[in-house]
Amino acid sequence: MIKHNSYFDNNVQSLGFDTADKPASVGVMAPGEYRFGTEAAERMEVISGALTVLLPGQTEWQTFADGQGFDVPGNNHFDLKVAVNTAYLCIYG
Amino acid sequence: MIKHNSYFDNNVQSLGFDTADKPASVGVMAPGEYRFGTEAAERMEVISGALTVLLPGQTEWQTFADGQGFDVPGNNHFDLKVAVNTAYLCIYG
Repeated sequence: MIKHNSYFDNNVQSLGFDTADKPASVGVMAPGEYRFGTEAAERMEVISGALTVLLPGQTEWQTFADGQGFDVPGNNHFDLKVAVNTAYLCIYG
Repeated sequence: MIKHNSYFDNNVQSLGFDTADKPASVGVMAPGEYRFGTEAAERMEVISGALTVLLPGQTEWQTFADGQGFDVPGNNHFDLKVAVNTAYLCIYG
């Protein structure tokens, strides 16, 4: 089953699905600044666009473009600055 | 603006958005067999999973996995066999 989720007044939307081994989602973020909490650990990969991220315990913002990704520990949060519409893949666990 | 679309009884869902130069969508297909028509030409890229495709004018089905893609001419159609939940990026034009 595919689950549509919408956050931040529809400025972030995602489609949840199960891969062969882990839950995942693909989504799109419109320009803006967002904070996401994590339950499980997350692997975020940029498909199109770019994400500027402040990861837990970091003081420097890092930008990830198409084909690049980053990991976020579980039970934590990360901050995002999005300058252009950005599509991403998130793999949980 | 991000536009959520749903097809084939919610077994195919997508999120439409504009990249810097072309319209695009990311989406998820549940297992099944689908035919899609095209208006503009389309570049399909597999993000997670696999798509088995019969392209216009072809007699052989071809399978594309993560990181692989294919092109479909405009004003045409293509047939898909999907064995596992598959996430994709489609770029139009």
